[in-house]
Amino acid sequence: MTDGKAIILLHCPDRQGIITDVTGFITRNHGNIVYIDQYVDTVEGHLFMRIEWELKGFFIPREHIKEVVDELFAERYGMTSSIFFSDERPRMAIFVSKMSHCLYDLLARHREGEWDVDIPCIVSNHEDLRDVAGQFGIPFYVWQLAPDKSDAAQVEREQLALLERERISFVVLARYMQIIGDEMIARYPHHIINIHHSFLPAFVGAKPYHQAYERGVKIIGATSHYVTRELDAGPIIEQDVVRITHKDTPDSLVLKGRDLEKIVLSRAVSKHIERKILTYKNKTIIFG
Amino acid sequence: MTDGKAIILLHCPDRQGIITDVTGFITRNHGNIVYIDQYVDTVEGHLFMRIEWELKGFFIPREHIKEVVDELFAERYGMTSSIFFSDERPRMAIFVSKMSHCLYDLLARHREGEWDVDIPCIVSNHEDLRDVAGQFGIPFYVWQLAPDKSDAAQVEREQLALLERERISFVVLARYMQIIGDEMIARYPHHIINIHHSFLPAFVGAKPYHQAYERGVKIIGATSHYVTRELDAGPIIEQDVVRITHKDTPDSLVLKGRDLEKIVLSRAVSKHIERKILTYKNKTIIFG
Amino acid sequence: MTDGKAIILLHCPDRQGIITDVTGFITRNHGNIVYIDQYVDTVEGHLFMRIEWELKGFFIPREHIKEVVDELFAERYGMTSSIFFSDERPRMAIFVSKMSHCLYDLLARHREGEWDVDIPCIVSNHEDLRDVAGQFGIPFYVWQLAPDKSDAAQVEREQLALLERERISFVVLARYMQIIGDEMIARYPHHIINIHHSFLPAFVGAKPYHQAYERGVKIIGATSHYVTRELDAGPIIEQDVVRITHKDTPDSLVLKGRDLEKIVLSRAVSKHIERKILTYKNKTIIFG
Amino acid sequence: MTDGKAIILLHCPDRQGIITDVTGFITRNHGNIVYIDQYVDTVEGHLFMRIEWELKGFFIPREHIKEVVDELFAERYGMTSSIFFSDERPRMAIFVSKMSHCLYDLLARHREGEWDVDIPCIVSNHEDLRDVAGQFGIPFYVWQLAPDKSDAAQVEREQLALLERERISFVVLARYMQIIGDEMIARYPHHIINIHHSFLPAFVGAKPYHQAYERGVKIIGATSHYVTRELDAGPIIEQDVVRITHKDTPDSLVLKGRDLEKIVLSRAVSKHIERKILTYKNKTIIFG
Repeated sequence: MTDGKAIILLHCPDRQGIITDVTGFITRNHGNIVYIDQYVDTVEGHLFMRIEWELKGFFIPREHIKEVVDELFAERYGMTSSIFFSDERPRMAIFVSKMSHCLYDLLARHREGEWDVDIPCIVSNHEDLRDVAGQFGIPFYVWQLAPDKSDAAQVEREQLALLERERISFVVLARYMQIIGDEMIARYPHHIINIHHSFLPAFVGAKPYHQAYERGVKIIGATSHYVTRELDAGPIIEQDVVRITHKDTPDSLVLKGRDLEKIVLSRAVSKHIERKILTYKNKTIIFG
Repeated sequence: MTDGKAIILLHCPDRQGIITDVTGFITRNHGNIVYIDQYVDTVEGHLFMRIEWELKGFFIPREHIKEVVDELFAERYGMTSSIFFSDERPRMAIFVSKMSHCLYDLLARHREGEWDVDIPCIVSNHEDLRDVAGQFGIPFYVWQLAPDKSDAAQVEREQLALLERERISFVVLARYMQIIGDEMIARYPHHIINIHHSFLPAFVGAKPYHQAYERGVKIIGATSHYVTRELDAGPIIEQDVVRITHKDTPDSLVLKGRDLEKIVLSRAVSKHIERKILTYKNKTIIFG
Repeated sequence: MTDGKAIILLHCPDRQGIITDVTGFITRNHGNIVYIDQYVDTVEGHLFMRIEWELKGFFIPREHIKEVVDELFAERYGMTSSIFFSDERPRMAIFVSKMSHCLYDLLARHREGEWDVDIPCIVSNHEDLRDVAGQFGIPFYVWQLAPDKSDAAQVEREQLALLERERISFVVLARYMQIIGDEMIARYPHHIINIHHSFLPAFVGAKPYHQAYERGVKIIGATSHYVTRELDAGPIIEQDVVRITHKDTPDSLVLKGRDLEKIVLSRAVSKHIERKILTYKNKTIIFG
Repeated sequence: MTDGKAIILLHCPDRQGIITDVTGFITRNHGNIVYIDQYVDTVEGHLFMRIEWELKGFFIPREHIKEVVDELFAERYGMTSSIFFSDERPRMAIFVSKMSHCLYDLLARHREGEWDVDIPCIVSNHEDLRDVAGQFGIPFYVWQLAPDKSDAAQVEREQLALLERERISFVVLARYMQIIGDEMIARYPHHIINIHHSFLPAFVGAKPYHQAYERGVKIIGATSHYVTRELDAGPIIEQDVVRITHKDTPDSLVLKGRDLEKIVLSRAVSKHIERKILTYKNKTIIFG
């Protein structure tokens, strides 16, 4: 008999009876469902579902659940699914550069116990935030690229070795001002969360606040998204905005944007930790 | 064989298997489910659900669905349910006084075909908006109370007779500056939608913009809610806010508030027409 | 002796003493200042100011004010200024196509007396909204372009003749789904207000809601701006946004967007009518 | 000859010529004005102004400015004014209880150099956050009241002695769950900033998130205000809100509220540090 809860995230082409089938399977095996949410994309004809049930008394041993689910539903419904357990805390690596506002926000939430997550390491391309990591007692690793970036591949290999060693489940780029290499993206597909300091797809790339200032917009934004190979083009998880006026300068936009960035990034990290995000065709389904 | 869709709104104490049971019942009778959303209030231990299915091919004749549903589930689960049909357009009465902004917003949406609703009559306590009703060709009825309001009961009886005659399913108070009598509230329980020009529960009662000005708030709001016997205390359907500054006067608050009022009221009316609102213990569950 | 108020909108390179000089000039000539707001763009080193004063008792006849102001300040400070009088109501032309939501919002405000403006004509490229114009008793003119648009120049000339005849001071494109010709833009520089149904500069051009749906954004917006020769690239006057979710379809985005569009357009029109907008280097300064 | 900038915050009954007079005074004494903003409350007939000018080359020695200003304007215009100097950093004391989110937000901003402020001490009624203070190397003082609060007056005296000793210019209550005594309020009039976790005046007093949950609101808020003798009734500095749904529990409201609280409190602290707040008749004028 096992304690804790199991979570299933699944999606498949929509057909009658899937919800009945899947909830029936859990109930029949004495799983007490405590959360269920589903969404049918009527444009794509695709079903997305998230169910959470108590493992106590559940007939199927936790290590066999995925196997049984696949046997029952994978082929029959063309279903893709992932199983998570509430007592397996995800392990999160944070990548930073020189700015501390997002890092502090993440670490303060962690310390407050807001998230069921471990943070075994912080990675940076500069020394600036070593003391922040020190304040929270988290190991801090620095790889500074050569000016010609000739060592980029080597650095990425070493970073991946660290992530492997620390059994990192997902990576948060907390204003990490450097492009992530393809190998790392391939190793963590839809498991690297970035915060971009604009309301994407407006102002892709460098210096978005300066771009916003130049264009004279009346609202600025921030966007958290999963990193894919195309720059700033991955599935959007969360966005928020703040009103500005003609009185704002590039500097004041940077300041106002900081508050957006940390909140928007942390909301995305929350949803990821709670396993409430499904991705499909470069979009996210976010359960409530 | 019938066309159109059926909608069920239900709630009951939460127990395992209800979702499987209800969706199974529809599927087994060859109903093609096109919408399902449910919510479990874990604090109250109560389940709320909304399902929509196509009537074409459904085994049970539409006039017997409610009866069968009750037989199967009412006692067994302690379930309260309502059945609606997509081809039965609700009939909406609008009550107004002197201000036209909400009325225009409602009528413009109706004319644009945004809502599946009929508007057989507009009721007022003043003549001011008769020409607006005329612009849209909708009958306009005026009852002006005596200064001592001694005829309030008589007026209410006449208004109820009109609503009955016009088979009105729900009433929208579009800035109707008059208290609704208990008899009408009893006749339309949670079917009278009001717009209050404040962020309730702040600034209950008269002149909320002046109250907001006096208090020096930095944000004002509007609230749409179902009318109950206690003033401005019914279940809240929708709220929204707008930022103000020390530069705003009571007059400019009134102007800014108008835009809020009409949007917030219309959002509530939309949800009501789509049968996406359940009320429970003086709160609303709003399906997406 | 004259009644009403005069409004000056001015801008010039910032130097010490300008505010003292200009306010001193008005006070010395017995003008009672009732509004003053100024803004110094410290990045550009440029001053923007708006002053409103009562004409009653003002020494300088209203028809000579502009001349005196220019004599005193134009060369000395490199100042550009415009003078308006509160009793000269601007005359606004509305251009529409097939959608009525923005048009109704503008006309309802006009009828409510929210704006000091005249609306002598509505222009369209389709017949669809003729009856809406009729509801409000406003002349409705239709020019439908030939399929090959070979008559575009001729149509523009005729439209300009109408605007001239009606002494139109500014034009509002209330979802007018057609490009404005260069001649009209040149004739009404920063006096044609458009509403674009996206959060510019995201989703320039056609079908922005579909673009937003494809990209999977979590917030959609609307932008009102002055029309310039480059499409959707003129000075932004106002923007606003609304949160969406993965549940939204292109159709529901269109619906949600409508409320944004009409509010954002009307806010821009308000500011324009109140002469509270200055444009400079493709940006707007909006006085409070 | 002095460096840095002087800031004047003033208000008085509105009369013609005040702006010309005050700006003229500064310009005449060779002060280079770099910021000017004023606001006339037309309802109250009262003028509020903030001017910033460079002290380099200013004729009047900084220690005599206040005296000269008062001589010129205090009696003549009934003017109340305060003079600040940009090189005199305010000294801020933070009062906390058990929750760290606001404290971290304040300290992270301080460490990032976002504010020109010193933080010589943190005061608490519990030991819980001693290590947070330690992380940032700031002295942490604890006074825990006796259960019967019989020592409240004595504690307040000791706290005031600390504030005096540390030359504290203003106090920030970063979720300090204890009433501030009248003596401290009298000693720091409109210089104690509180964050209340509701959209005031809704949900005054204890457990506002639970009150919000009970009422079924669709939006929650947070309010920063100056502390006065009446509970939660002082001049409001800043408010913000976040949308919630029926799915939110009291616990999730608390979580969502945290992000509001820290942002709203920090915005108020920013404005206070920048000397951009004037209070008048229990309201604030916030300069941009």
